[in-house]
Amino acid sequence: VIVTVTLNPALDLTYSVDELIRHATHRVRTVTERPGGKGLNVGRVLCAAGEPVLATGLLGGAIGARVAEAVGTAGVSGDFVRIGGETRRTVSVLDSGDATGFWEPGPLVTVGEWTRFVERYDTLLGRATVVVLSGSLPPGLPVDAYATLIQLARDRRVPTVLDTSGEPLRHGISAGPDIVKPNAAELSTLSKDTAATGTDEGIDAERSVGPEEIAAALRALAIGCRTVVVSDGRRGLLALSETEGWQAVPPDVIEGNPIGAGDACVAALARGLRDGTAWPAILADAVALSAAAVAVPVAGGFDREIYERLRSRVVVTSLGNRSAQGVQDVQLDR
Amino acid sequence: VIVTVTLNPALDLTYSVDELIRHATHRVRTVTERPGGKGLNVGRVLCAAGEPVLATGLLGGAIGARVAEAVGTAGVSGDFVRIGGETRRTVSVLDSGDATGFWEPGPLVTVGEWTRFVERYDTLLGRATVVVLSGSLPPGLPVDAYATLIQLARDRRVPTVLDTSGEPLRHGISAGPDIVKPNAAELSTLSKDTAATGTDEGIDAERSVGPEEIAAALRALAIGCRTVVVSDGRRGLLALSETEGWQAVPPDVIEGNPIGAGDACVAALARGLRDGTAWPAILADAVALSAAAVAVPVAGGFDREIYERLRSRVVVTSLGNRSAQGVQDVQLDR
Repeated sequence: VIVTVTLNPALDLTYSVDELIRHATHRVRTVTERPGGKGLNVGRVLCAAGEPVLATGLLGGAIGARVAEAVGTAGVSGDFVRIGGETRRTVSVLDSGDATGFWEPGPLVTVGEWTRFVERYDTLLGRATVVVLSGSLPPGLPVDAYATLIQLARDRRVPTVLDTSGEPLRHGISAGPDIVKPNAAELSTLSKDTAATGTDEGIDAERSVGPEEIAAALRALAIGCRTVVVSDGRRGLLALSETEGWQAVPPDVIEGNPIGAGDACVAALARGLRDGTAWPAILADAVALSAAAVAVPVAGGFDREIYERLRSRVVVTSLGNRSAQGVQDVQLDR
Repeated sequence: VIVTVTLNPALDLTYSVDELIRHATHRVRTVTERPGGKGLNVGRVLCAAGEPVLATGLLGGAIGARVAEAVGTAGVSGDFVRIGGETRRTVSVLDSGDATGFWEPGPLVTVGEWTRFVERYDTLLGRATVVVLSGSLPPGLPVDAYATLIQLARDRRVPTVLDTSGEPLRHGISAGPDIVKPNAAELSTLSKDTAATGTDEGIDAERSVGPEEIAAALRALAIGCRTVVVSDGRRGLLALSETEGWQAVPPDVIEGNPIGAGDACVAALARGLRDGTAWPAILADAVALSAAAVAVPVAGGFDREIYERLRSRVVVTSLGNRSAQGVQDVQLDR
């Protein structure tokens, strides 16, 4: 089973309003609730794609109970560790223009709760074919929490995919995950040596991959991860391993909601890693699944027809047996 | 016991952020949760003032359970009718400037649930000294819901205070409540013959009482209520009965959070009505309690020291034995 880890899940509320006006009061027209946090989105995409998946992580309080219930309703098996704190909410306000987001801070996790999670996780590793580690860390967790989980997976020869940002990403990379999947903006924070906040979701942006990001990817490889896959929004994916480089470009631009596209990409990477699929096929799958996720309005799903249509038409180009200098010369098609 | 009725309660969430920017994503610095809805605020003020109070209304789902728990934690006795729908949330986002509010729609209430509430309410009337009816109506309730509750109270000779707006206010007035307490903006909607939405909280504004509002107040008296008390923010209160008029002005301007001041005013009116207190003393109490509520950051409380200090210094002026023409000539001190 593919195990997805969500240490800072959320109950995602989406409000639609006529137009957001600062310092005004708004009647919310419609309210939708769904489980949030990148790992839970990955789990729902895998489940929708028919893959066996198990979602784990930390949940607490009445909101946590609601998230657990919604995960089950979505058909995803869950095995969460309960914590004393209350799982956070996120509120996204949609108006005619775009979304305005408000993210509550995560609950404070105690040392004892983290220890219990690590024990539970270690048990789940016995059944895991791949582990996906996604999203931010809640307060109280050590900044190297993902490094710890990656090391335990390596000890049991379970491959890992890491999708986070800032300091947790930097520490996680040093433990040698099989794939890291930053987007361009996240890679940029790694590159700039900034003290990032350890939270990440939704910072996604229209950033593009440039020389600075490629340099950061190379550094990530040098630090310890095996493959860096950089998502670049609708421009596709760049994959760099220690010996090869690939670029995958979607054949069509799909309009829709980009939130969740990165999680669909991670879902495809995870199943490719599990099956030992060749990189060109993995990347074609990941680009098609991401684009098909953009076509549905909420994160955690994808449009099956679009996925089937695009999959065989993704253009994957080898960047050749790469050398550091060669890759630094790469210019993605614009 | 003073019975407060809250048909459309809420779980009020308050988020603090650095600065609200439309279409950006914000990290919420602090989250506070408390029971919301005007009737619950009135109940908490009365409880804090040492008055016996019982809160009733409609609550449903996990959010409703949370509201019930929080009401109990605040020390207020509650006797709510459970409904199948989920109690709404409100989200207020505070930044350096002011608050931006998002109000979820209330749950749809069924005919059976409303019937059960009316029965429960009728039972509670046997113990009630005064009934306070506050706030908006959730979807599904008849627009004359307050009129029904006022009529039942009159049948049992229990005096009533009504604080709502729009069509529910208009219908409620026709049933002859002892006091209606619109603010200037609410009175304005009554005056303009608009088809209001039946929801009201937070529409409070910097509107002031002018000739149009006074005309509307006179009309409210003509329709059936005994006394109209118009709250005019920091400018104080205007009270008009069929035979008299009074104006009450706070001695000091208290800075703070005006949300909840109207509910503190209603609390004072309710206990004055219960005790048969003379109008000048009721209004002095109401002005002082409102100002003392402004001094605390959240609705439902008040600053006891400020209340004691202001109470004896509120200036209450008789407008004389009023005639319609006389009152229309009133100009409030500015």
